[in-house]
Amino acid sequence: MAELKELTPRSVDYSQWYQDLVIKADMAENSAVRGCMVIKPYGYAIWEKMQAELDRMFKETGHQNAYFPLFIPKSFLSKEAAHVEGFAKECAVVTHYRLKADPNGNGVIVDPAAKLDEELIVRPTSETIIWSTYKNWIQSYRDLPLLINQWANVVRWEMRTRLFLRTTEFLWQEGHTAHATEKEAIAETKQMLDIYATFAENFMAMPVVKGVKSPNERFAGAIETFCIEGLMQDGKALQAGTSHFLGQNFAKAFDVTFATKEGTRDYVWATSWGVSTRLIGALIMCHSDDNGLVLPPKLAPYQVVIIPIYRSEEQLAQIDAKVAEIVSKLRALGVSVKYDNNDNKKPGWKFAEYELKGVPVRLALGARDLENGTIEVARRDTLTKETRSIENIEVYIKDLLDEIQTNIYQKAFDYRTSVTRNVDSYDEFKVEIEKGGFLLAHWDGTAETEELIKAETKATIRCIPLEGDMTPGKCMVTGKPSAQRVYFARAY
Amino acid sequence: MAELKELTPRSVDYSQWYQDLVIKADMAENSAVRGCMVIKPYGYAIWEKMQAELDRMFKETGHQNAYFPLFIPKSFLSKEAAHVEGFAKECAVVTHYRLKADPNGNGVIVDPAAKLDEELIVRPTSETIIWSTYKNWIQSYRDLPLLINQWANVVRWEMRTRLFLRTTEFLWQEGHTAHATEKEAIAETKQMLDIYATFAENFMAMPVVKGVKSPNERFAGAIETFCIEGLMQDGKALQAGTSHFLGQNFAKAFDVTFATKEGTRDYVWATSWGVSTRLIGALIMCHSDDNGLVLPPKLAPYQVVIIPIYRSEEQLAQIDAKVAEIVSKLRALGVSVKYDNNDNKKPGWKFAEYELKGVPVRLALGARDLENGTIEVARRDTLTKETRSIENIEVYIKDLLDEIQTNIYQKAFDYRTSVTRNVDSYDEFKVEIEKGGFLLAHWDGTAETEELIKAETKATIRCIPLEGDMTPGKCMVTGKPSAQRVYFARAY
Repeated sequence: MAELKELTPRSVDYSQWYQDLVIKADMAENSAVRGCMVIKPYGYAIWEKMQAELDRMFKETGHQNAYFPLFIPKSFLSKEAAHVEGFAKECAVVTHYRLKADPNGNGVIVDPAAKLDEELIVRPTSETIIWSTYKNWIQSYRDLPLLINQWANVVRWEMRTRLFLRTTEFLWQEGHTAHATEKEAIAETKQMLDIYATFAENFMAMPVVKGVKSPNERFAGAIETFCIEGLMQDGKALQAGTSHFLGQNFAKAFDVTFATKEGTRDYVWATSWGVSTRLIGALIMCHSDDNGLVLPPKLAPYQVVIIPIYRSEEQLAQIDAKVAEIVSKLRALGVSVKYDNNDNKKPGWKFAEYELKGVPVRLALGARDLENGTIEVARRDTLTKETRSIENIEVYIKDLLDEIQTNIYQKAFDYRTSVTRNVDSYDEFKVEIEKGGFLLAHWDGTAETEELIKAETKATIRCIPLEGDMTPGKCMVTGKPSAQRVYFARAY
Repeated sequence: MAELKELTPRSVDYSQWYQDLVIKADMAENSAVRGCMVIKPYGYAIWEKMQAELDRMFKETGHQNAYFPLFIPKSFLSKEAAHVEGFAKECAVVTHYRLKADPNGNGVIVDPAAKLDEELIVRPTSETIIWSTYKNWIQSYRDLPLLINQWANVVRWEMRTRLFLRTTEFLWQEGHTAHATEKEAIAETKQMLDIYATFAENFMAMPVVKGVKSPNERFAGAIETFCIEGLMQDGKALQAGTSHFLGQNFAKAFDVTFATKEGTRDYVWATSWGVSTRLIGALIMCHSDDNGLVLPPKLAPYQVVIIPIYRSEEQLAQIDAKVAEIVSKLRALGVSVKYDNNDNKKPGWKFAEYELKGVPVRLALGARDLENGTIEVARRDTLTKETRSIENIEVYIKDLLDEIQTNIYQKAFDYRTSVTRNVDSYDEFKVEIEKGGFLLAHWDGTAETEELIKAETKATIRCIPLEGDMTPGKCMVTGKPSAQRVYFARAY
């Protein structure tokens, strides 16, 4: 079926397979604006599911949503030195606020009289505008902690873009919290990392490594960046979420102090953390196959599709009636269902379409099934099908969805395990990195060695893991002492 | 209590009262960026409630969400003549995509080498970018109708801004639909107007007039603009939502045609419709009083607040235990509750605070109440209170919330009725308009007369109503024939 849709197989060209799939499964497409995507309804429905779960987890841990301006005055961005250094090269800049008719009659031109005194930057991230606001919100320890999240669009002018994975504009959430003590801020940073890991594993069915970034890969303005790293089917890693301990850097840049319980004044401690529509790219690349998307049931826009097989209007009417019963029983169990009895398309076309769209379970019901009291159940993850009694089918489906969720995770986990290995010499590293996957190796902790490895092998340190083998050793490149093995990979 | 918060009374300065209230009730504040607001958590929570209800109603009528780029190429905006004419004067324009270190050492400057070939406009509305996309999505009548909505931020460079009511950046939803026939598109336009009216009346408790805008007040690029108009407590009208029938204007501008069922080709018919964070301003101005916000229960971030009255830790512990029971019973009935047992604030402070915040019902529970099996119930809308048996209090509260929702609507409805009247001469009109409210008068249908009335009285035609008195008459200004009375008012 899927060949009709002309998906490039993963083995031929993984990158082209991804691009084909995003387009053909109606997830997103490139827009007329360079680097900006259109997120189509099917892709956006997955984002809405992701948002709902994350938002619930944020609120359960005491965070509230708010909204801050799209624009940041240029001077604000400069207030934290490392921050502006990190973002200045990719900023969309608003310089004027009016158009006027072209005196030569060619549409409209920018009105030179409407030049802004100070240019505005379209937010690439909101630390600066938010900390300039927090200055007025925080006077005393009683105002802390301040636990705020924002769902928003941001813009980073990327030269090479790829749908969902790297786009000039993307959608995300950014949490920005303020605390009275360093300890509390670090605890918050780690709590949000754990929430991201839980979301990735339990909802996206994507196993992730939790760790700390090396100084080279830190967020611009952070003291420490924590991250979750997933592994895609082509053996490349993907950073799926970050949580930053910002120390007092932004409090100092924007002069945000508070009266402590002890009656002194201190700068406020900060965190920020975010995940973006990039997660949709990770979801696609982690599970999908040459036939199309494979979606975990917990994030699928609909979990079950039902397709009638009929030769006459009369047969269809009988099937419609039976399906109505099944749909209502499934919905009562909290299962989302689509019934596609569109008469313009043949069943074969529909089978291929929903396979491409990654719907976890497909049910097919024909005239003979009605006679026999049976129904055909097909699993998207294993591409297997079976004919079952229609009696209590809703209970079976409900359990099957759980099984599929678990199976997809386990498959990704097993794959990751199979391509994660220790490497002890740099020569071995150079050979192994060509095969993809995670390499756990010792590193002397210096930026120089990290940069050398990157230049020679295109591999980066994905993270210094928080769990696992903590045995010290010697750097594979320099032989200098290493505190623990770190994760290397080529990455998106 | 409220005088402690120093709200300017409405009778002294309505506009200042509104400004005070938005700030003091922690709804929103002005940001460091001219004309852009920060929506604070309490204000944003109301927006989330509005979004949830509207989104549900959109989906129930077959619409799907998607996301289109923030930026619009300047040339796109020019493609529909009336559209660019309407928006060119208030556009934020991105001209560059990089900053660099100032060679003079003063922070960063715009990098002149990073000038865009074509400027990008920050979307003031998305018809042009969306219709340029629809061109690729629509080939045949089978692709229609296309029913898409987007939740997004937009920017219109306003010279005079007011929190929620008119800001440079605001949040909104914009629906953009495509249809095979004029009839279908008009039906969609009216359906969405009805959804807005239902939302305004049933959720915001704000009565609205449904009508059509005069040509002067039409959306730039529309054939017909339908609107809902509310009336604020100072007698001024507020446009709360618009639904536009766009005809084939945008299909022609972007060359979007489709193969009809009959095998011919035709341009696609379009609608667009939107409501914004302006609704929060309307909600505040429609119901609130000199003591603070009055929120309808259906949109209140929490519907009930419970405050303990105690002298000792022991008493508090007893009250805590009793409140836990009440909270769980209320939640089981779907009522949202906040229990404020914060020990840093006195009950009197809390009473004033939640009055200011417009929480519909306040419960207070003291040691004597525990002895007597009673609880104090206070209504925010009427500012009355009573002591009741605590038995089955949750059922009473649930009903009381419905009663409050109805009462708030009825109060607004009665006020509107009391200030809506027929006016038959222009002399009378000039006197009456000073008193505020809606004036129903005959108008000859010309832009000239409309402009004269506006210039002389600051009143605009709010809409040509779809329901009510349809008797023809003579224009109050020119004496020419008038098809029906139209609504005039001064407006936000």
